[in-house]
Amino acid sequence: MTYTPTDYEPYDFANRRHIGPSPDEMARMLRVVGADSLEALIDETVPGEIRQEAALAFGPALSEGECLDHLREVAGRNRVLTSLIGMGYHGTITPPAIQRNVLENPAWYTAYTPYQPEIAQGRLEALLNFQTMVSDLTGLEIANASLLDEATACAEAMAMAERVAKSKARAFFVDENCHPQNIAVVKTRAEPLGIEVIVGDPDDLEAEQVFGALFQYPGTHGEIRDFTDQIAALHAAKAVGVVSADPMSLLLLKEPGAMGADIAVGSTQRFGVPVGYGGPHAAYIATRDAYKRALPGRLVGVSVDARGNRAYRLALQTREQHIRREKATSNVCTAQALLAVVASFYAVFHGPKGLRAIAERIHARTVRLARGLEAAGFRVEPESFFDTITVDVGPLQHAVMKSAVDEGINLRAVGATKVGITLDERTTPEVVEAVWRAFGILGGPGDEDAFRLPEGLLRRTPYLEHEVFHMNRAETEMMRYMRRLSDRDLALDRAMIPLGSCTMKLNAAAEMMPISWDEFTLMHPFAPEEQAAGYRHLIDDLSMKLCAITGYDAFSMQPNSGAQGEYAGLLTIRRWHRARGEGHRDVCLIPLSAHGTNPASAHMVGWEVVTVKTADNGDIDLDDFRAKAKTHSDRLAGCMITYPSTHGVFEETVREVCEITHAHGGQVYIDGANLNAMVGLSRPGDLGGDVSHLNLHKTFCIPHGGGGPGMGPIGVKAHLIPHLPEHPVTGEGAVSAAPYGSPSILPISWAYILMMGGEGLTQATRVAILNANYIARRLEGAYDVLYKGPLGRIAHECILDVRPFAESAGVTVDDIAKRLMDCGFHAPTMSWPVAGTLMVEPTESETKAELDRFCEAMLGIREEIRAIEEGRADPEDNPLKRAPHTVEDLVGEWDRAYSREAGCYPRGAFRVDKYWPPVNRVDNAFGDRHLVCTCPPLESYAEAAE
Amino acid sequence: MTYTPTDYEPYDFANRRHIGPSPDEMARMLRVVGADSLEALIDETVPGEIRQEAALAFGPALSEGECLDHLREVAGRNRVLTSLIGMGYHGTITPPAIQRNVLENPAWYTAYTPYQPEIAQGRLEALLNFQTMVSDLTGLEIANASLLDEATACAEAMAMAERVAKSKARAFFVDENCHPQNIAVVKTRAEPLGIEVIVGDPDDLEAEQVFGALFQYPGTHGEIRDFTDQIAALHAAKAVGVVSADPMSLLLLKEPGAMGADIAVGSTQRFGVPVGYGGPHAAYIATRDAYKRALPGRLVGVSVDARGNRAYRLALQTREQHIRREKATSNVCTAQALLAVVASFYAVFHGPKGLRAIAERIHARTVRLARGLEAAGFRVEPESFFDTITVDVGPLQHAVMKSAVDEGINLRAVGATKVGITLDERTTPEVVEAVWRAFGILGGPGDEDAFRLPEGLLRRTPYLEHEVFHMNRAETEMMRYMRRLSDRDLALDRAMIPLGSCTMKLNAAAEMMPISWDEFTLMHPFAPEEQAAGYRHLIDDLSMKLCAITGYDAFSMQPNSGAQGEYAGLLTIRRWHRARGEGHRDVCLIPLSAHGTNPASAHMVGWEVVTVKTADNGDIDLDDFRAKAKTHSDRLAGCMITYPSTHGVFEETVREVCEITHAHGGQVYIDGANLNAMVGLSRPGDLGGDVSHLNLHKTFCIPHGGGGPGMGPIGVKAHLIPHLPEHPVTGEGAVSAAPYGSPSILPISWAYILMMGGEGLTQATRVAILNANYIARRLEGAYDVLYKGPLGRIAHECILDVRPFAESAGVTVDDIAKRLMDCGFHAPTMSWPVAGTLMVEPTESETKAELDRFCEAMLGIREEIRAIEEGRADPEDNPLKRAPHTVEDLVGEWDRAYSREAGCYPRGAFRVDKYWPPVNRVDNAFGDRHLVCTCPPLESYAEAAE
Repeated sequence: MTYTPTDYEPYDFANRRHIGPSPDEMARMLRVVGADSLEALIDETVPGEIRQEAALAFGPALSEGECLDHLREVAGRNRVLTSLIGMGYHGTITPPAIQRNVLENPAWYTAYTPYQPEIAQGRLEALLNFQTMVSDLTGLEIANASLLDEATACAEAMAMAERVAKSKARAFFVDENCHPQNIAVVKTRAEPLGIEVIVGDPDDLEAEQVFGALFQYPGTHGEIRDFTDQIAALHAAKAVGVVSADPMSLLLLKEPGAMGADIAVGSTQRFGVPVGYGGPHAAYIATRDAYKRALPGRLVGVSVDARGNRAYRLALQTREQHIRREKATSNVCTAQALLAVVASFYAVFHGPKGLRAIAERIHARTVRLARGLEAAGFRVEPESFFDTITVDVGPLQHAVMKSAVDEGINLRAVGATKVGITLDERTTPEVVEAVWRAFGILGGPGDEDAFRLPEGLLRRTPYLEHEVFHMNRAETEMMRYMRRLSDRDLALDRAMIPLGSCTMKLNAAAEMMPISWDEFTLMHPFAPEEQAAGYRHLIDDLSMKLCAITGYDAFSMQPNSGAQGEYAGLLTIRRWHRARGEGHRDVCLIPLSAHGTNPASAHMVGWEVVTVKTADNGDIDLDDFRAKAKTHSDRLAGCMITYPSTHGVFEETVREVCEITHAHGGQVYIDGANLNAMVGLSRPGDLGGDVSHLNLHKTFCIPHGGGGPGMGPIGVKAHLIPHLPEHPVTGEGAVSAAPYGSPSILPISWAYILMMGGEGLTQATRVAILNANYIARRLEGAYDVLYKGPLGRIAHECILDVRPFAESAGVTVDDIAKRLMDCGFHAPTMSWPVAGTLMVEPTESETKAELDRFCEAMLGIREEIRAIEEGRADPEDNPLKRAPHTVEDLVGEWDRAYSREAGCYPRGAFRVDKYWPPVNRVDNAFGDRHLVCTCPPLESYAEAAE
Repeated sequence: MTYTPTDYEPYDFANRRHIGPSPDEMARMLRVVGADSLEALIDETVPGEIRQEAALAFGPALSEGECLDHLREVAGRNRVLTSLIGMGYHGTITPPAIQRNVLENPAWYTAYTPYQPEIAQGRLEALLNFQTMVSDLTGLEIANASLLDEATACAEAMAMAERVAKSKARAFFVDENCHPQNIAVVKTRAEPLGIEVIVGDPDDLEAEQVFGALFQYPGTHGEIRDFTDQIAALHAAKAVGVVSADPMSLLLLKEPGAMGADIAVGSTQRFGVPVGYGGPHAAYIATRDAYKRALPGRLVGVSVDARGNRAYRLALQTREQHIRREKATSNVCTAQALLAVVASFYAVFHGPKGLRAIAERIHARTVRLARGLEAAGFRVEPESFFDTITVDVGPLQHAVMKSAVDEGINLRAVGATKVGITLDERTTPEVVEAVWRAFGILGGPGDEDAFRLPEGLLRRTPYLEHEVFHMNRAETEMMRYMRRLSDRDLALDRAMIPLGSCTMKLNAAAEMMPISWDEFTLMHPFAPEEQAAGYRHLIDDLSMKLCAITGYDAFSMQPNSGAQGEYAGLLTIRRWHRARGEGHRDVCLIPLSAHGTNPASAHMVGWEVVTVKTADNGDIDLDDFRAKAKTHSDRLAGCMITYPSTHGVFEETVREVCEITHAHGGQVYIDGANLNAMVGLSRPGDLGGDVSHLNLHKTFCIPHGGGGPGMGPIGVKAHLIPHLPEHPVTGEGAVSAAPYGSPSILPISWAYILMMGGEGLTQATRVAILNANYIARRLEGAYDVLYKGPLGRIAHECILDVRPFAESAGVTVDDIAKRLMDCGFHAPTMSWPVAGTLMVEPTESETKAELDRFCEAMLGIREEIRAIEEGRADPEDNPLKRAPHTVEDLVGEWDRAYSREAGCYPRGAFRVDKYWPPVNRVDNAFGDRHLVCTCPPLESYAEAAE
């Protein structure tokens, strides 16, 4: 019969689900842009000389269903045992209410870092809860909003200790009872900075020789020691005491603050965040009030808004790389916001009494385990412990370990003759009995009422007294609290977030599903490799595909963030130089327009940063580059460039920059932040790059999570492979606690690549470029685009110059950012890489309708500016200066020079579905002057409102 | 060592997660209530003579984790094969974006039926999309917002046909090619109504003999016939033509409307709703405009709000049981809102082109399958088909079926010698090849480009032309659309919904998780029983526990809603009478205060309803009851009572009512709507009940889903067991299409019971009673509570008498309901069981804080009424009359007699987190006068706003 089938593929994830504009919309957009075809636009945008030769060929793209089926199969290759390995990774129970309403809810996971506080009050409150929890548990005044993992937190603490200690010593002491990965990462960090790491027994600490010391509490083998004397000695020597503490243990044990510790670090993983083969989880760092300005990472603080109402925002943002790029000793940028939020909700959910009961149960169960072992004649160490014991089994270590595996349990091999056992929240009595069986014991005591905590180290102080932790424990209450907080925020599930350089693209539901699967979440990072065949395949295949995309020869998944990727990449170069006997090379050329983390990372590997000028067109000043490379030829370690440039342009000279660097003996680091403009079109490895990090949380769809998790794997050319970070327990140069960083989120990126296929990925790049050029063209005449390629095209982002309005109308980039909130948008990137400008990156996932809505908003704002310029609007009393507008504005007296309607419904805003910021413009200065970084008492809310 | 463990169980779901008030809060509430203890309050509330003897003993309650582990294990006992059985149940692909953002999102699943339209605009829009989709696909002017399943939809269509047909015939013709369960349920429905069902070949239809006819399209064995001639003949005989059509086939085939059909019904299951062993899914019914007032179920229509803006609401609510209780021929109440919403989003997600492509692919794959079979010498029937074929294999039927099972595939046995095969959206080429192998064929044609649709029955008309179905196909757009709609609504995830008789309690995240598991969702209802061992265990154990809770001897899970449970229960009684030769008994005593569905259900089983008076104290008038029982003694079939009464009181005379009924030869039906006040305290089976239905979506935590799914299993005493509904394919008296109704949501109720344990369930009952008494006491003085027990206590709900305010202040119950929206609450049940009153049921899941917030709101409203009474407020221009208030009110001119602040922030309202209704008060009359029940064209929105 005659029948013409429909020309449509309903399961085409790549073209019809991930990519925003439909083919029809693209045709219309190309007409606006003035390009004959998408290919033609790309030809005008991406220089021919940098185009890659072969198309990406990954076989056919999978549908969502096919992809999930495939991932199920691969996940099934992991054999998940009950891991009692400990070492900082513990079984935990994620309350289903938190899993469903936070971890799996796009309102939480698609949010951006809360730099725009008015539209981030919900997650700021959750992070403040996190800080309060950490501060309370550690007994220190101030805590930040998370770090990447416990090991990097230890390294950050060392760097911080060096900054704040008055001691002139150049060594740092590390307790030999620290988890091995903590020691490893501290060593990695110390070496380029010229810090000597002394690993030893705390009793042997000689305080005068060090600027600081790190102690593990409880120790990796379970010892619980009081470090009060050591810290007192350190203080006497003007050195700093750092304690890495398990927060679960702190519910029962004396807190680091009570020992006099200056800094506490640790991991909050076991507060409801699954182990996930190593991550992501939120580490913490807390310190004394006196050292708050040295605290790395992000810090949430309390301030007020323009109406005087309480409002949260990131505090002390002027610390670190923002102002001290060339002097930074930390490059922390991405944190683990989503996981910190989960941990904070876990604490809110259980409250202090519930948490304490959990800790007691873990401990009592461990005592029962120990008593059973002892009754059978085994000697259990240490005498008092929290959740970890060690048993000497002599030559039978392997036999016991294997016997445990047969029982479905992984134990820890300690030395050659011992076995370590660490219990956790998930440990059932049946597991205890299975461990006994692994030791050949057929029964033990049934009761769980004995305690073996050291009498002198019992917790004497209360914690979590703020009322948020005393919320009613009903799920109804908790569910509504989580909903209220998420409703305060504006995330990708409501609007485009056109943040230049941040690539806020779709995080598809299908990509997110595997991260809740037990086969991925329950795997311990130090479980025997043969149990992780699924992860192995995933990581290998993902690496192979990333190599094909970038032109590199190998990838390391270890770095947990983009900045950490930079650092790991530079370390790799450094190790290569040293291996070749050129360890003296320590100059790094970095263009002025670089990401702020670039110089900070270079500094962290002990290099001197030499800045290269920018030419008038925004490109790297090639003459200056050549001259400086020559000047520093002998010492040239390398250069760090971003491609396409942070100005959003494909510089045609990139190959030359690489050649110059290589000619002078340096290595080329190409920052992969902008890879979304390159995938399928151009490969950094082909351009001359030796190393790049990729932001999987930008280009490869891992959600931003409100400020983390991130993933910054590095790709390298073959000659660098031997110098990549090694396993944190068995190798050298580790930068993260876990061998593969945060592997439990890798299924997201892998699923994305599988569902896009090579052509889909390439098309995404093309459309990202189209979307950006469409915005640039639509805003032409209203805003100047700062930098363009020779044919007038931009890459995947563009810089809008709003500096002239400061003079013409007194309107700042901040005013425009806040006004965009009234339109229901998150602002573009502000004042970077050029102060006073906006950098817009729409990504390929936004539809024409949303791009048009954004353009409407920006054009409307331009008209509002014009009204001021032309004297039709008051220079102070206008919608821009008073943005964002809240319902509070509407309820109160309206004595403004413009109407309510004009204030609240600018062009681009939805009417019925308008997003209302919960607070007016936040006063940053007030908050920094009156720094409060823990939950304020309830009465103070009332005061603030007055 | 000395250590006092914390007295707290962190994993106590029953007491600390499900039950709202903490022990401390309960103590304070008891003081307010004036009871010495919870037990004392219960003693004062629940008469001793009705208390059950033994406590519920289900063993220890499970934690969330233990429960999910157990359910995983039980789910694993189901062996999920690829079922190509068809019969109206088809594999489908739920888009992950819809699964995550709708099906698993409390903003959607915890919503109530959209009776309060101002706070339900989101789901009303989604349901309007559903109606538009159905109307378009069937080619009929008006469709409702879903029915329970296809089989009941067929029965509803028959009942509707009887109402609208001018023919005086008393027979109904049913196409023998209907799915067997459709025929079965129609027969069940017809018999008590005295309708003769003629099953036969449509070619043999004698139109004059019937008032209507039902045809299946395509037929259950795949035949695609044109019923135009039959319907023309029916029309000539003043009879009505009904077509039950598969909506997937309508994408390619001529629509029922084009054949002249008056009514179309069918199931939208295969539009993204997993099979789930039979349900829940949304059935549909559509008809001509002329018959709209006869349409059963809920109907969404378009109207305007007080500002003239477009607003949706339920239309023509004056149909059916609301006004015609004693004459009703349908008792449809609960629908399948959540599943209709999913199906509508599936259509929005794919759009007409995508849906058509899916249908084509299914068809082309079926053709390929057929060609392979034919090439191997098998004869495939019918000649043209859509997705279903039949193959005659002679005596090898069993062998082929078994061979298929070995390939992981279930086929359908047709007759004694044939095998039926139905393909679907999930069928891959590999499945086709596996089917071939089951037939011993090792290869077949590779292409999928041939079509075998009947030329004369191709679809000629367009569909889904409204722009909502032409939304950009990007997930970003879809995700935001779903979010915007859900944000318009107020559901349990934001506030208490204190609906009397509806028991809107917590639907815990842990309870909801299993409903997304493949082991539960992918099972076909007619798969071989041995594959469903997990479901079997779940259903058996749940039944056993429900028996223990209610005092009955067996349960049938078949009824899909409470009203259907009533109907099934009465049918069971009816069959029992007939089996005893007392089929003449046809009088049912029903108190005035009964649920509206009670008389409707009685009418549906052919009984005459005799109403029993209510005494002054609200109880059943016992004298009247006795008198009427005596009067109708010979004909007494039974009585229907609710316990505790719909007035929220434990009547002490309940046993007597039962005894009187039994004495006159009747059976007692106790409506289980209020079981939440009894679990663990009293058992209807002990009181004298012979049958009860339970609303699992009330007492046992299945979420309301915005108006369904529901589950109304019935419990019976032993003597009635043989008369329960049987299997819809192999037995008699079926009331639902699937043997166990909607089994895929049973894990919710089972998990609830497992996590509560017997004592937890009992405690929930006590606290439900405490919470209700607390509200009643706190509102004392402001509102009169209409009915109380002898000691001044109420059960789990109370009726607030607001009738006096109509006279004193011109304030109606509607005004109060709308004003509560300003406070962020869904109104209590309005005007039922007493006109002009509010019935409040808080449930045990609400915390003291939320109860207090509600009381604050109600007390504030009382003060606002007082201001009118005392002349301090204008009788028309006051916050009550103009409620609810929207942001539109604030933006526009404010010329009211009260302030913006007073209007928008009444007592009880949140400040920062206030919920704003998206529309002002909806004009119901306008909508009914200008009935529009499909998506209106976009321009009309602008008109309405003018």
